[in-house]
Amino acid sequence: MRIATYTHQGLRRVGQVSSDGSTVTAFDLSPAEAQHGALALIERAAAQAAWPALVGPALALAALQLDAPLPVPRRSLFCVGRNYHAHARELRDTVFKDSSTNTAVWPIVFSKLADCVVGPDADVQLPGDAVSSQIDYEAELAVVIGRGGRNIARADAMRHVFGYTIVNDVTARDVQMRHGQWDLGKSFDSFCPMGPWIVTADELDGRDTRVRCWVTPAGCAPELRQDGHTSDLIFDIATLIETCSRGITLHPGDVIATGTPAGVGMGMDPPRWLQHGDRVRIAIDGLGMIENRFMAGAA
Amino acid sequence: MRIATYTHQGLRRVGQVSSDGSTVTAFDLSPAEAQHGALALIERAAAQAAWPALVGPALALAALQLDAPLPVPRRSLFCVGRNYHAHARELRDTVFKDSSTNTAVWPIVFSKLADCVVGPDADVQLPGDAVSSQIDYEAELAVVIGRGGRNIARADAMRHVFGYTIVNDVTARDVQMRHGQWDLGKSFDSFCPMGPWIVTADELDGRDTRVRCWVTPAGCAPELRQDGHTSDLIFDIATLIETCSRGITLHPGDVIATGTPAGVGMGMDPPRWLQHGDRVRIAIDGLGMIENRFMAGAA
Repeated sequence: MRIATYTHQGLRRVGQVSSDGSTVTAFDLSPAEAQHGALALIERAAAQAAWPALVGPALALAALQLDAPLPVPRRSLFCVGRNYHAHARELRDTVFKDSSTNTAVWPIVFSKLADCVVGPDADVQLPGDAVSSQIDYEAELAVVIGRGGRNIARADAMRHVFGYTIVNDVTARDVQMRHGQWDLGKSFDSFCPMGPWIVTADELDGRDTRVRCWVTPAGCAPELRQDGHTSDLIFDIATLIETCSRGITLHPGDVIATGTPAGVGMGMDPPRWLQHGDRVRIAIDGLGMIENRFMAGAA
Repeated sequence: MRIATYTHQGLRRVGQVSSDGSTVTAFDLSPAEAQHGALALIERAAAQAAWPALVGPALALAALQLDAPLPVPRRSLFCVGRNYHAHARELRDTVFKDSSTNTAVWPIVFSKLADCVVGPDADVQLPGDAVSSQIDYEAELAVVIGRGGRNIARADAMRHVFGYTIVNDVTARDVQMRHGQWDLGKSFDSFCPMGPWIVTADELDGRDTRVRCWVTPAGCAPELRQDGHTSDLIFDIATLIETCSRGITLHPGDVIATGTPAGVGMGMDPPRWLQHGDRVRIAIDGLGMIENRFMAGAA
């Protein structure tokens, strides 16, 4: 099932996307529940409670504004660094220079504030050169946790997956590196496009799908920059869930971004940073695609 | 003014502590507002809206259960690493080994999940040796943001401070170091004792106060382990607010933990980790004190 969060006639709704992808039909949720997007559905599924009925007409997706499936996730996203070998190589002398050898055994996990999530076709705000001029994209498969838990064993971990979505882990590279810890450079306002919806785990195996990213500079043709496959993850999804839940209770609706393949702007020679008017499109097989413009100027 | 969050007869309340510290009188807040502790007051102050009246009798503090002033802060805490010179020296060869030289110019800022906040006298749960046996304390002054904003200039920053509280930035050292990024090892369940209340900025200058920490091993006398002064911060409070708000909109109720003085368990030779039954007390002049037991076994 594909679960979308959207705004129709000024009201936020959560609905099921039709199998041909052309329409969406709303679930019977209260306005307060719908405000949090798919969270109420995830919590009901985790509690094995009754699923809400579909109500109202099937609306054409083209006539709606899609929001992020979790418009503001319940808390910071768990994000994984250096999780594809080719990406580890391309940033070996920059972002990963100070990472100790331990991170070959244990994943690098950092955080991205939930407040920076924006919709699948929303604009991302460039912060201005005084703050950062090194804005970069990172195409990622994100895991949405269903049933929560602490100290989840790797062998049980996939049962805790509700579904998957796409995130662009937008990063201010200079800020990421200069503070030693990465969270600030990952959490600028609007720096987490997410969507277009959640695909439930019965319809997509996140362990075996293709992740691609194109950058379209203003007035130019799209350039394929990233083309990876989640079967190449250094730390697989089950290991990431085990790692993040060690000592920390995971909750329904938590999000784990699984890391980005090679091909980020910082890995190019010379590096290529996102500019005003650039569009970044991310497609994941079995999920769909998001595309966001990067725009200068105050939001 | 000292603003406490507490539970009385099964109901969470937010109140003003009397000048002699013996009683607390509740503010007229709805139960839903009181659930979030002092947040509603902070938001009203930030909006320059009317402050709620005090209602009901003055209750003896000794008869109440104090909760954290922000029982679950609105989002992850902004936490600062390596912000006292002597502490920088004591962990030079361990925690700070991989930090680049840039962090002498820019503060190290990481995150701690809001869900791990517990009250000023609540037990902290040791996670068990299979998860971590290197549990350590960090006594810290925490800044509570009042008026929000983005790209706040250092010269204006102190006007954005609502008040101050105490946090113990409890840390699993092995987990902190092995993942390269620190957030996991800082965010175990119950790893952020906070309290005993918020002191507003008109009554305490957080830039000039003393931070002390005692560890009391089971059956032993208290040992003074940390004794620092916020006037020795490497990056002062105004600089931290400027740093955290660069590109990121701060909101009323955000918390910035300012870093810990020298004297943590990891800095001792050999290191001394917290054990079952140990109590850790943190006192900050002008604020008060918190004391938490560290206990093995499931919560």
